Amino acid sequence: MIEKLRSLGLQILEMVNRGENPYIEIPVRSLSNIVWDEKAGLLRLGESKAKRYFFHVGHARKFMQTMLVAAFCEDLLDENIHTSIRDMYYNLKRTLPGTKENTFDTQDESNPIIVDIETSLNILREQLHLIADRKGVVAGNVVIEDRGDEIDWSKLGSGGWSIPSAVEDIKFKHVDADFILVVEKNAAFERLHEDKFWKKHHCILIGTGGQAARGTRRLIRRLNKEFNLPVYVMTDADSYGWYIYSVIKAGSMNLAHTSELLGTPTAKFIGLSASDIKEYGLENFTIKATERDIKRAKELLNYPWFQHKEWQKEIKLMIKMGKKAELEALSSKGLRFITNNYLPEKLEKRKFLP
Amino acid sequence: MIEKLRSLGLQILEMVNRGENPYIEIPVRSLSNIVWDEKAGLLRLGESKAKRYFFHVGHARKFMQTMLVAAFCEDLLDENIHTSIRDMYYNLKRTLPGTKENTFDTQDESNPIIVDIETSLNILREQLHLIADRKGVVAGNVVIEDRGDEIDWSKLGSGGWSIPSAVEDIKFKHVDADFILVVEKNAAFERLHEDKFWKKHHCILIGTGGQAARGTRRLIRRLNKEFNLPVYVMTDADSYGWYIYSVIKAGSMNLAHTSELLGTPTAKFIGLSASDIKEYGLENFTIKATERDIKRAKELLNYPWFQHKEWQKEIKLMIKMGKKAELEALSSKGLRFITNNYLPEKLEKRKFLP
Repeated sequence: MIEKLRSLGLQILEMVNRGENPYIEIPVRSLSNIVWDEKAGLLRLGESKAKRYFFHVGHARKFMQTMLVAAFCEDLLDENIHTSIRDMYYNLKRTLPGTKENTFDTQDESNPIIVDIETSLNILREQLHLIADRKGVVAGNVVIEDRGDEIDWSKLGSGGWSIPSAVEDIKFKHVDADFILVVEKNAAFERLHEDKFWKKHHCILIGTGGQAARGTRRLIRRLNKEFNLPVYVMTDADSYGWYIYSVIKAGSMNLAHTSELLGTPTAKFIGLSASDIKEYGLENFTIKATERDIKRAKELLNYPWFQHKEWQKEIKLMIKMGKKAELEALSSKGLRFITNNYLPEKLEKRKFLP
Repeated sequence: MIEKLRSLGLQILEMVNRGENPYIEIPVRSLSNIVWDEKAGLLRLGESKAKRYFFHVGHARKFMQTMLVAAFCEDLLDENIHTSIRDMYYNLKRTLPGTKENTFDTQDESNPIIVDIETSLNILREQLHLIADRKGVVAGNVVIEDRGDEIDWSKLGSGGWSIPSAVEDIKFKHVDADFILVVEKNAAFERLHEDKFWKKHHCILIGTGGQAARGTRRLIRRLNKEFNLPVYVMTDADSYGWYIYSVIKAGSMNLAHTSELLGTPTAKFIGLSASDIKEYGLENFTIKATERDIKRAKELLNYPWFQHKEWQKEIKLMIKMGKKAELEALSSKGLRFITNNYLPEKLEKRKFLP
């Protein structure tokens, strides 16, 4: 990564040496340049790029900020330390000598600069050692090496391994699994973990605790790609749950530049679907969909990545019923119904949505 | 725990056998019955109790619900499985045969019943195997046994051990530390963890990620009590951070019945204080306090557990300055200032707030 940063710096230096007005080229991130790549199954940035010049009244401040952030990241990589984007903001904030001008006035100025560098260099900010809040937990027959420690994900008791924000440097020493099961809800993770589902079904169990954090998405992607493991995602039967699935699979619009590294296009959806509600007799355990749920569902209907006929049917069914169901609703059939009946049946019959 | 549940059941059975109107005695949780126990340094419930009768138009439904939840918890303990309060709700919800009456209509009905049982039996719901969302992470020279696994908190790489909701059954096999450092912010935890602060300073490092979860508070309390370890808490310099500290130390009003098991009255505050802002030259890295911050600070001023003159001085200073500071502001002095300067100095000079 440090080479990419240095090459950016060298290019600018060369422009200076040639007496040119130095610039950085940054892919445009506005909606008009976000494209659905049908073949790859990913949301991506298109080809539009913008140039940010040093000698330009409207660009100069941002140019200076971009250089500051890039140099900061080079230091992080050099010293091999990680920090948060908030710490970076505080560290770089100062008043330029002899002026009343601050390098950055608020974090709203430094955050987008990080994304500029991510997109320009086509890397993740975690690879520049700028980390996000950790969220997510994992268990399974996997041994990794991380910061010199050997960690066995099958021997962490009830706690599991807390997935860090930067998972790039993790070495997989031993991966013994047939697939990855990703669950949205912590409660479902706890149930499956306590029942040692990952042991019985020979899988890696990952709990995202709601929308999956970047570190968790990257971990899923790495395991999927490096070990050719199928990924099955389980969420609530509602528009928000299904959207969480789609972000894991295809990426999101505001992070379209990261899809290739964070998205897992071959991921499949294992449940809950709207038709599961009838199939599993959960009618008395549904929740009335709010207006927002329905509005969100109608948006999903239009997304290119929800155009499969199976999904259209499911989303329309949810809108028609005006009802949603949580994973916990399966507990109405018994606390271990999810472990002993629902999931084994779905896996055996390969009842997945695309 | 199961004995306490069974004894509750037996008492009721005896009343039935004696031809009496069976009742359960439940401590009152309204504000009038929440007391500040100066000597213990804890918020507690007072002596007021209410009786819930079976033959009573206003009580019968709740009586039935209490019996259902108690029986459910007995099953959990019998089978040695854990579940969430949401799963419990779904599992217990049903329509009584021959009526249109549901056992529970919403989770708002089942949640308070759990607290009724907690308070009546003076136990934690986690001890009844009803778990909450996990949050919090730990690292240090500690080896535990949990669900048959031996886990070394010093060998978990960048991830750390994800603290589960129920920590009652954890066995501490080996605890080698002089104190416990609890940090509110994930970013500060990551910094200190990466710098192996816990190794250099011989402590247990715990990250709460905002308000500490019940499992994390219980873990702090157990380590403090069972190994006589001092606890130092680090939060932002603002009313919310200081409140997070006070909850770890003395408990909270809406969970006053749990203070004895979750609170750590000997905990001390290591920073950030309002006077740290000047002391460490953070004036340019403060944030303007909002009206809500100030209002909250004025509330803190009146809490009996903030009556120490040091705290009164700090809170008044914050109100006077109209400013607050985040832990990340220390990064303005260098990313490792917190690891190499701020904390070692505070520890050496024992500059703690009570």
